[in-house]
Amino acid sequence: MSSLEELAQKLAAPRVVWLMLPAGDPTRDALRQLASLLSPGDVVVEGGNSRFSDDTEHAALLAEHGIGYVDCGVSGGVWGRENGYAVMCGGSDEHVKRVWPLLRSLAPEEDGIVHAGPVGAGHYAKMVHNGIEYGMMQALAEGYELLEASEYVPDVPKVLASWRHGTVVRSWLLDLQVRALEADPELAALSGRVDDSGEGRWTVEEAVRLAVSAPAMTAALYARFASRKPNAAQLKALASMRQQFGGHAVHAAATDGN
Amino acid sequence: MSSLEELAQKLAAPRVVWLMLPAGDPTRDALRQLASLLSPGDVVVEGGNSRFSDDTEHAALLAEHGIGYVDCGVSGGVWGRENGYAVMCGGSDEHVKRVWPLLRSLAPEEDGIVHAGPVGAGHYAKMVHNGIEYGMMQALAEGYELLEASEYVPDVPKVLASWRHGTVVRSWLLDLQVRALEADPELAALSGRVDDSGEGRWTVEEAVRLAVSAPAMTAALYARFASRKPNAAQLKALASMRQQFGGHAVHAAATDGN
Amino acid sequence: MSSLEELAQKLAAPRVVWLMLPAGDPTRDALRQLASLLSPGDVVVEGGNSRFSDDTEHAALLAEHGIGYVDCGVSGGVWGRENGYAVMCGGSDEHVKRVWPLLRSLAPEEDGIVHAGPVGAGHYAKMVHNGIEYGMMQALAEGYELLEASEYVPDVPKVLASWRHGTVVRSWLLDLQVRALEADPELAALSGRVDDSGEGRWTVEEAVRLAVSAPAMTAALYARFASRKPNAAQLKALASMRQQFGGHAVHAAATDGN
Amino acid sequence: MSSLEELAQKLAAPRVVWLMLPAGDPTRDALRQLASLLSPGDVVVEGGNSRFSDDTEHAALLAEHGIGYVDCGVSGGVWGRENGYAVMCGGSDEHVKRVWPLLRSLAPEEDGIVHAGPVGAGHYAKMVHNGIEYGMMQALAEGYELLEASEYVPDVPKVLASWRHGTVVRSWLLDLQVRALEADPELAALSGRVDDSGEGRWTVEEAVRLAVSAPAMTAALYARFASRKPNAAQLKALASMRQQFGGHAVHAAATDGN
Repeated sequence: MSSLEELAQKLAAPRVVWLMLPAGDPTRDALRQLASLLSPGDVVVEGGNSRFSDDTEHAALLAEHGIGYVDCGVSGGVWGRENGYAVMCGGSDEHVKRVWPLLRSLAPEEDGIVHAGPVGAGHYAKMVHNGIEYGMMQALAEGYELLEASEYVPDVPKVLASWRHGTVVRSWLLDLQVRALEADPELAALSGRVDDSGEGRWTVEEAVRLAVSAPAMTAALYARFASRKPNAAQLKALASMRQQFGGHAVHAAATDGN
Repeated sequence: MSSLEELAQKLAAPRVVWLMLPAGDPTRDALRQLASLLSPGDVVVEGGNSRFSDDTEHAALLAEHGIGYVDCGVSGGVWGRENGYAVMCGGSDEHVKRVWPLLRSLAPEEDGIVHAGPVGAGHYAKMVHNGIEYGMMQALAEGYELLEASEYVPDVPKVLASWRHGTVVRSWLLDLQVRALEADPELAALSGRVDDSGEGRWTVEEAVRLAVSAPAMTAALYARFASRKPNAAQLKALASMRQQFGGHAVHAAATDGN
Repeated sequence: MSSLEELAQKLAAPRVVWLMLPAGDPTRDALRQLASLLSPGDVVVEGGNSRFSDDTEHAALLAEHGIGYVDCGVSGGVWGRENGYAVMCGGSDEHVKRVWPLLRSLAPEEDGIVHAGPVGAGHYAKMVHNGIEYGMMQALAEGYELLEASEYVPDVPKVLASWRHGTVVRSWLLDLQVRALEADPELAALSGRVDDSGEGRWTVEEAVRLAVSAPAMTAALYARFASRKPNAAQLKALASMRQQFGGHAVHAAATDGN
Repeated sequence: MSSLEELAQKLAAPRVVWLMLPAGDPTRDALRQLASLLSPGDVVVEGGNSRFSDDTEHAALLAEHGIGYVDCGVSGGVWGRENGYAVMCGGSDEHVKRVWPLLRSLAPEEDGIVHAGPVGAGHYAKMVHNGIEYGMMQALAEGYELLEASEYVPDVPKVLASWRHGTVVRSWLLDLQVRALEADPELAALSGRVDDSGEGRWTVEEAVRLAVSAPAMTAALYARFASRKPNAAQLKALASMRQQFGGHAVHAAATDGN
C-alpha cells in the first residue's frame, strides 16, 4: 500500500494522521504500517467504528514507536457535512490537544467535541450513543406501528409531523422519520429486514459485563435480529410445542409462502 | 337451541351443567338460556376459556335465579384424556363441593384439582398458568435456536432428549419438544407463524393493571405477534430512519420476496 | 358545584368550554353537569389525561344535547408556557374548527396542533406519544447507567452535554437530562423509585389489543414497576428456586436492609 | 501443589482425571500442571463451569503432551446425588469413550449423558441449558407474583402445588418452587437480591454473537441485575427527566430509606 508511505512523506512533522477504515484487520494492518512509517511525536486518530476494547492494544502498538493515539467516534451520519458532526475522543490530554484543531474542522460547534476520557473512551462513548440510538429508534418505530394499526388515526404521518413542535419526544430521529414519511408515506419501498452494526451488539455485551439492565436497547437489537429471520428456528419450536400439547392448528411451511 | 332445554329436562335436579363454549357471546348466550331453564339449587360449571373478568357478571346472572356458578380452567391439552387433566376452579365452597365429583372424573389424581378462590379464581389461575407456559416455551425455543445456530452442537435433538433426565429444565414442555423433534428433526413441516390465544394477552393486561413487571411472559407474547408480521410497520420505520441518517443500504421491498 | 353553572351563564353562546380534570369520575361528573348547563351548538374540549376509550361515551353524552365534543392531548410539560405546547385533538371537522382559535393560543407554532382524527384520536395520539416518551427515556437512562458503570468515561455529564450537538440522539429529553445533571451531577437527591402515569399502561394494553410487538415501550414501563418493589415477590421466588436446586447462598431478608 | 503430583503418581496409566475447579485461572493453572504430570494416553475431564470458549485452548495445551481432553457440563444441583446428574460432554469420540464409565457413575440413567459434540460442546450445551433455566425460572416467578398481587387467589402455594399434576407447566422447577413455599409460604426469609452465575451472561453473549433474538432469557438476566440495584443510576435518570419536563413529584433519596 504505497499510499500510506506517500502520505507519511508528504506531511510535515509533527504529523497527525486520521484513519477511518473498517474495524478489525484493515484498521490493525494500517496501524502496523503507520507504526513504522511515522515518527515519534506524530499522532494517529483512529476514527473508524472499532470496538473500544481494540484501542488499548492499538495505542500500545504506536506508543512503542513514540507515536500518539487518539480514538474517535463520530456521529451525524450523512448530514454531518451540512450540520457539523459530533465528535467523541479518547486519549491523553497531550495527544487530544494536538489533534483538537482537526476535530474542530469536523465539529464547528463549540460543544460538539468531547474529550471523553483515556484511550478507548471515544469509541466507548460512541458505542453507548449508538445503543441509545437503537432504543430511541425502536420506541419511535413501535409508536408508529401502533398508530398505523389503530382505527383512531387516519393520517399517521401528519401526527408525527406535528410532534416536531413542543412535544416531549421531539428529536432528530423524529425529524428523520417525518422526512422518510414525506418521501414515502407508507414506507412501501422498504422491506422489513433491518441490519445492525457492531455498536448495538457491543452495547449489550457491555451491559452484560457490567451487570447493567438494558432492556430497551436489547429489545431494539433483538427486533432487528428477528426481522431478518421470518422462519426462525425458535418460532418453529414454539409452533411444534403448541401442536404437541394442544392439537393446535399450525401454519404449515408449505402453505404460507415463507 | 332445543338441546339446552332437553338437557335441562333430562337431568334430575339438583343438576350440574358443564358448559364449554367459545368465550364471549356464545358463552353468555348459553348462560342466559340456562338461567331460565334451570332451577334453584342447580350449578353451572363454566369450563371454557373465558376471561376471568367475565365470571362475576355470569355468576350474578345465575344467582338471580338461585343457580350456582363455578368457573373452571382446565389444562392438559390433548393428553389430558390419557394423563388426567389439571383443574382450577373458582366459586363458593358450597358450589365447588357440589361439582367436585364431576371435576374428579377429569382429574383423577388427588392433587390435580384446586379450589383456587371465589368466582373468577379458576379462570384467573388458568390464565396465569398459561402466561407461565408462554414464558417457558419461549425460553425453550430460544435455547433451541441458539443450539441450532451454534457451530458447537451438531445434533441438537439428541442434546434436548438427554435433558429429560436429571437436569434443572426437565419439564413436560421439554418432553413435547423432544417428541416434536423425533417426528420432524428439523421442524421442516412448520412455518414460523405462531398464533396466540386470549390467556397470554390477558396475563400481560393483568401485569399492567397490577404493576407487576412481567418481561419474560411479555417477550413470549410479542415474539408471537412479530412472527406473524415479517414486514411489520415498525421494521420499515427502523429501516427508513437508518436510510435517512446513515445512507445505510436497506433492503428494498421488491427484492427480497416478502 | 356552582362554578360550572356560573361559568355557563357568563359565557356568551355559542360557548367553548375547556375541561381539564383528573381522568375518570371527576371528568365524567363534570361532563354530565355540562350536558345540562350548556346549549346546542356549544362545544366542550376535554383536555385532561383521559383514556381514549372514554371519549366515545363522553361525546355521545353531550351529543344527546346537541353539544359538540373535542378530545385533546397536550404535551410540553411545565415548559409549554414558555415554548408553546403541542396539541393533538380528535373530533368532527366542524367541532375542531370551532375550537381551533383556542388551541392556537396554546400552540402558537403553525404545526404545533394536529387534528388527529375522529373523537378519541386526540387522546390516542397523546397516549402513543407518551409510550414513545417512555421508551426514549428508558434508552437514555440505560445509556447513562452504562457510562456511569464503565471505567472508561470519568465525566459522564460532560459526554451527555456534548451529545446535544450533531448526534443522532439529540432530543429534548437529552436536553432535560443534561439540565438535571447540571443541577445535580450525581443525581444524588433522587431515589430510584419511578412513578408511571396511565398513558404508559394504556399503550401496552393497546399493543396487546392490536397484536403489535412493543418491547421497548413495555420494558420502560416494567422498569418503573420494578423500581418500586426492591423485594418483589418474583425476586424472592427466584431466590427460593436457586436455593432449592443449587444450595446457592442467598441473601437473607434480615441482613440486607430492604 | 503436591496433591496433583501425588494424584498423578497414585493412578495407574492410562489415567482419567476429573477436574472441577472455579473457572478461569484456577482451572487453567491446574491444567498446566497436569500437562506436565500426566502421560500420553491420559485424559482430563474438565467438569467445572468454564466458558465453552476456554475449552479449545485447554484442549490444545494438553494435546501438545498427547493428553486427551473432555469438557463436561453437569446439571442437577444438590439433588443430583440422589436423582442422578445430567451430563453433557464435548470431545473426540475416542476421548469421550474413555471417560464414559466415569460419567456413567454420575448419571446412571441410560439417557442422562450426552456426547454433545467436539471439544467445547459440553460446556456449550450446559450454558444453553442454564439460559433456558433462567427463562423458565423468570416465567414461574412472574406468574407467582401475579397470583400474589391479584385479589382473586387467596392461597397461592396451594394453586402452585396443584399445577404439579396434569398441567402444561409441570416441571422440576415448579416442584422446587412448591417445596420452597411449603417451607416458607411467604418466602419471608429471603431478600429480593438475586445473584447470577456466568452461564446466564454467556448465553446472552452468544445470542448477540449469533444474532439470535433471546428476549426471555435476557429478561431473566436483567431482572437479576436490577434486583441488586434498587437505586440504579438509570432509575435516578428516569426520575430526573420526569422532574424536569413535568414538574412531577419525585421520591427524594433521603426519605425512602434506600
